[in-house]
Amino acid sequence: MKGQLILLRHGQSLYNQKNLFTGWTDIDLSEQGIQEARSAGKTLSHYRIYPDICFTSWLKRAIHTAQLALEEMEWEQIDIVRSWKLNERHYGAWQQRNKDEIKAEVGETAFFAIRRGFDRSPPALEEGDPRLLQDNSKYREIDPGLLPRRESLEDTAKRVLSYFFEKIAPQLARGKTVMVSAHGNSLRALVMAIEKIDRKEVERLEIPTGLPIVYDFDDMINMTKKTILKKSHP
Amino acid sequence: MKGQLILLRHGQSLYNQKNLFTGWTDIDLSEQGIQEARSAGKTLSHYRIYPDICFTSWLKRAIHTAQLALEEMEWEQIDIVRSWKLNERHYGAWQQRNKDEIKAEVGETAFFAIRRGFDRSPPALEEGDPRLLQDNSKYREIDPGLLPRRESLEDTAKRVLSYFFEKIAPQLARGKTVMVSAHGNSLRALVMAIEKIDRKEVERLEIPTGLPIVYDFDDMINMTKKTILKKSHP
Repeated sequence: MKGQLILLRHGQSLYNQKNLFTGWTDIDLSEQGIQEARSAGKTLSHYRIYPDICFTSWLKRAIHTAQLALEEMEWEQIDIVRSWKLNERHYGAWQQRNKDEIKAEVGETAFFAIRRGFDRSPPALEEGDPRLLQDNSKYREIDPGLLPRRESLEDTAKRVLSYFFEKIAPQLARGKTVMVSAHGNSLRALVMAIEKIDRKEVERLEIPTGLPIVYDFDDMINMTKKTILKKSHP
Repeated sequence: MKGQLILLRHGQSLYNQKNLFTGWTDIDLSEQGIQEARSAGKTLSHYRIYPDICFTSWLKRAIHTAQLALEEMEWEQIDIVRSWKLNERHYGAWQQRNKDEIKAEVGETAFFAIRRGFDRSPPALEEGDPRLLQDNSKYREIDPGLLPRRESLEDTAKRVLSYFFEKIAPQLARGKTVMVSAHGNSLRALVMAIEKIDRKEVERLEIPTGLPIVYDFDDMINMTKKTILKKSHP
């Protein structure tokens, strides 16, 4: 039996709705996001794809997406493992700011390069910024040197992939079906590695919300098949 | 730093409301049960008791109680580990039946002895009974010989304690704060062992719903202190 990986990108959050950069801001799903999560659960049930274990980030929009999908599937008995290493890309000083305002400030080219490119970062959060999480009780036990103040997609990819090989790949190697509920950019980083997409192509890579992506793997954790599940219901 | 154990008994379920025996029937919380779970979360926040890890049974009334309490605490990033070994006592052929009807059938003395005593069991589910879970997809990977068709509290205690020493005690030994969200009788079995309550006294042992019990432990996993948290809010 071979490993299978289900990627679930959370749907609309209250910040998406307001056109703000979210990053590590812990904002919940909107009503539409809740429906997208339930819909993903319905679809997984329809195709009879039931995970053995679920991984999520530390952010409630991904945590709740997994919970709602699993509730919809009547499949809530599996273990849930969470890590900040699956958090969304850290958007630095852009977090909680309006996307159009920033685009007007920095110009369309720089905006696109930083937002979609591989190695460009937004400006960092400065010392004393209330958006820093170093003193947040959840993050207090983590080496502050590890906690980002901004990230390029490349930075996000480093932590996501180190976590993937440490915790997720061993489950796949045991033939397990693993669900990962995470974010647009933390999943882009993962998909880039799984599908061997290069740093130029990744600019155009978009992960759908609410539609689970299912990868099959061989014994050496090479991807052998990709399926984007079609919505099974109206 | 010493280990700390938080026991959380789920509040009212839709079956409690209807006065039915639940056991392993997977019935959700009532509106009152949802409020009790949120209230437990508020109380834990008030006393600043934040778990490092959470264990639940496979039954949604305990799963949702943990989720709601942790959501209320804004403390959803911890890992959640689940096992059928924390499920409620299996009530055999009494499951899904009205408590008063059974009491009238068997008489008050037998009813009390089976319901509250240590070594008496209700009648077993028979082969072919739709209430058996052997073919349920969640339970399919478990050795059917391990799955009960009825249990005395003593039977429940065996599986709960074996799980406690296998999975929970090692966390306590590492000084972790562990939350266990489970059921009236699976928790009675655990409390009996922790507090060294004998099989006669256990008849009168009741676990409160919605009020977390907190135990402190020493290095040898002996309980050194018990606190039933008082509700912190109106």
